[in-house]
Amino acid sequence: MIRKRVVIIGSGFAGMTVARFLRDVDVILIDRTNHHVFQPLLYQVATAALSPSDIAWPLRTLFRAQPNVRVVMDDVLSIDRTARVVRLRDSAPIAFDSLIVAPGSRHAYFGHDEWEALAPGLKTMADAVHLRERMLLAFEVAERQRAETGTQNRLTFVIVGGGPTGVELAGSLIEIGRKAMGPDYPHLRLEDLSIVLVEAGPRVLPGFDPKLSAKALAVLESMGVTVKLNNPVSAVRSDGVMVGNEWVPSANVIWAAGNKASPLLNTLEAPQDSCGRVKVRPDLTIPDDPWIFVIGDAAHCLGRDGKPLPGIAPVAMKEGQYVAKVINEDLPPEQRPPFTYKDRGMLATIGRAQAVAQIGPFHASGVVAWTLWCIVHIFFLIGFRNRIRVMSEWIWYYLTFKPGARLLCEQPPHQHSASSTDPAHEKAVEDRPPLRRAA
Amino acid sequence: MIRKRVVIIGSGFAGMTVARFLRDVDVILIDRTNHHVFQPLLYQVATAALSPSDIAWPLRTLFRAQPNVRVVMDDVLSIDRTARVVRLRDSAPIAFDSLIVAPGSRHAYFGHDEWEALAPGLKTMADAVHLRERMLLAFEVAERQRAETGTQNRLTFVIVGGGPTGVELAGSLIEIGRKAMGPDYPHLRLEDLSIVLVEAGPRVLPGFDPKLSAKALAVLESMGVTVKLNNPVSAVRSDGVMVGNEWVPSANVIWAAGNKASPLLNTLEAPQDSCGRVKVRPDLTIPDDPWIFVIGDAAHCLGRDGKPLPGIAPVAMKEGQYVAKVINEDLPPEQRPPFTYKDRGMLATIGRAQAVAQIGPFHASGVVAWTLWCIVHIFFLIGFRNRIRVMSEWIWYYLTFKPGARLLCEQPPHQHSASSTDPAHEKAVEDRPPLRRAA
Repeated sequence: MIRKRVVIIGSGFAGMTVARFLRDVDVILIDRTNHHVFQPLLYQVATAALSPSDIAWPLRTLFRAQPNVRVVMDDVLSIDRTARVVRLRDSAPIAFDSLIVAPGSRHAYFGHDEWEALAPGLKTMADAVHLRERMLLAFEVAERQRAETGTQNRLTFVIVGGGPTGVELAGSLIEIGRKAMGPDYPHLRLEDLSIVLVEAGPRVLPGFDPKLSAKALAVLESMGVTVKLNNPVSAVRSDGVMVGNEWVPSANVIWAAGNKASPLLNTLEAPQDSCGRVKVRPDLTIPDDPWIFVIGDAAHCLGRDGKPLPGIAPVAMKEGQYVAKVINEDLPPEQRPPFTYKDRGMLATIGRAQAVAQIGPFHASGVVAWTLWCIVHIFFLIGFRNRIRVMSEWIWYYLTFKPGARLLCEQPPHQHSASSTDPAHEKAVEDRPPLRRAA
Repeated sequence: MIRKRVVIIGSGFAGMTVARFLRDVDVILIDRTNHHVFQPLLYQVATAALSPSDIAWPLRTLFRAQPNVRVVMDDVLSIDRTARVVRLRDSAPIAFDSLIVAPGSRHAYFGHDEWEALAPGLKTMADAVHLRERMLLAFEVAERQRAETGTQNRLTFVIVGGGPTGVELAGSLIEIGRKAMGPDYPHLRLEDLSIVLVEAGPRVLPGFDPKLSAKALAVLESMGVTVKLNNPVSAVRSDGVMVGNEWVPSANVIWAAGNKASPLLNTLEAPQDSCGRVKVRPDLTIPDDPWIFVIGDAAHCLGRDGKPLPGIAPVAMKEGQYVAKVINEDLPPEQRPPFTYKDRGMLATIGRAQAVAQIGPFHASGVVAWTLWCIVHIFFLIGFRNRIRVMSEWIWYYLTFKPGARLLCEQPPHQHSASSTDPAHEKAVEDRPPLRRAA
């Protein structure tokens, strides 16, 4: 008997969960990287609190014990529904009987894609390492300017987007900047550092209860973060952002607002929403194709309240389990129960011993929520080894304020700043070969 | 009283030791990276056994407790002895009363600098991460070719140079390839993998006693490494190397042969040897300039036997201590005792529980030497935290054969191989923007 071949695109929480639960079928798991990332802790890599290998795990090692899963590291260029194949950049096309599309999303720049280079986001490990390099280098440049000229160039980081990622980044950055990095940059003064969190809506953590949003705002401000609400960003330049009518000078803008689903979905020729997500049927398939599933961030799937489910890890994992069950039991479309998601609550951390939690009727903040956050995140980290590593890093950092992952390998090309106006110097710098950097 | 200003170029073992021992002077430590690397374990990062942050430590954190040390991350372009300043890429020139030049070395390609891109070396963290990416990607490519075509494309790694780095890389690669990575690449067969170690001279580890060289050779061969002695490499191409009269096809050549001191030394206008090292006086200074010292790999310093001291960490650290003492005591040239180095022995590891040790009359190999190697390397790792991390990584890996640092972030541009002859495809690949990669 020839076994059914299931192809999975993407090894995030959605795709990986499907692969782990599938039985008695041949699985091909395609990803453009060779690892699964524990995305909820990416911001800690971006702020140098954790190392990349603390929160990532090679796919091949994860699936060692499942010989029916084959891992392919490649870029999917398109999906051909008629020929029943996916086309890849380097490999030969791969045929499928059933396809699970879980390519995730990138940030949305609201029609201003040119902002991405100026205000990078945080979705992948490459993003996190890039942000870490920018942050470390910004401190080096500010220290140098202070030492040489004594001028009060403020070191300002602007974070656009007041959701969990933005709040976590803001809290983490001000903490690292003031407590951990302060002593290492003798010329910088603490008041030189400012962290600005910009949110277009009326409150931070808009997905949470308003009381918890207010609590988070109070904590952020007490930590020294400047929070600007009710104002969208209307312009991004290399030397700052326009927030409403106010110009905020900053060479370090980080984007944590909005999502845009992977452009690969366009090749599916299925209905999409304004974010590019595919509008799936109640069994998470696309219309007229009961064996092509779209899950995770890439899916527009309605919840019980009639609103699309949020693009978070618990939703992605539940969708993955549902799809694996449908395939394992070979259920024809008419026998599939609709996918349902029972809200398991939300957690967001803000800083040392500061977090908010909302689990059904249970709302909490401060140390209680933070402890819960630590437990949940350690619990869901894959693998005994990474749990131990991350826990020990957190304890070490909590006790010493010395984050361990602050490596810049070679000095990247000169950062543009308002003060560097010598074109000959700029040219000389640009002529340098691209540097290899690492972490 | 104005304190003397001491400028140190390079934060390797030599430069860092000087900085740690200097008292009552203002110190400026310049490096093009922001960290000190424990170079003897770099090969373990290159083979994905350790993470970069396990063996590197941010300079600013290292010198937190020494407020007289200022860290500058920049590239030194030249040394101006007349004006008593060093000139930097991004910063203003820095004046010195005393200068310690310890910029280290790169590999020597014996007049074939064009080989460097084809056969990269292993001197910095950036090198190690680059080699790791190449290795991981080579396995991915080989697995893909096997799965698609079934052809027996051997996966061959050639390591040029039979010194400690070459031997350690060869042993580590065959071990990782056969034991750890084998199970992860179901289509690859163990016999597909071959590791070739090339040495121009008559034996591996030429710095050791001939009996230990023979022992190391026997261990390497029993592990499955092909060792080719008595033959220099006469050509390097992207698809292989010419060793003597034999063509060895390989897309993965690693250079571990020869040293060439930093070109910065040319700006000192002091006598140099054929490797570019500065011929220092018995007090490690350059002729006619008793407050400019050259130490570490960059110095040609004669030992008791009349031969130049080897470019190894113990020599560099002893030189650093000597220079710090001369400056701390403000010794005029005529009162300085000549620098002397007492050989502390040599260690080289080959594989699991296999090493060689030579400490004066004491020679050892096997488990005894390996245990000694582990103890010495853990002992000299800076900082409690890194010691614990590396030890736990080693124990984990020893027990599980699952190395932890195998991350490839996005698929790098297509590797050139003998089989990819489609120019259109090549072009398409080259048109892609440079990928950000991380670890």
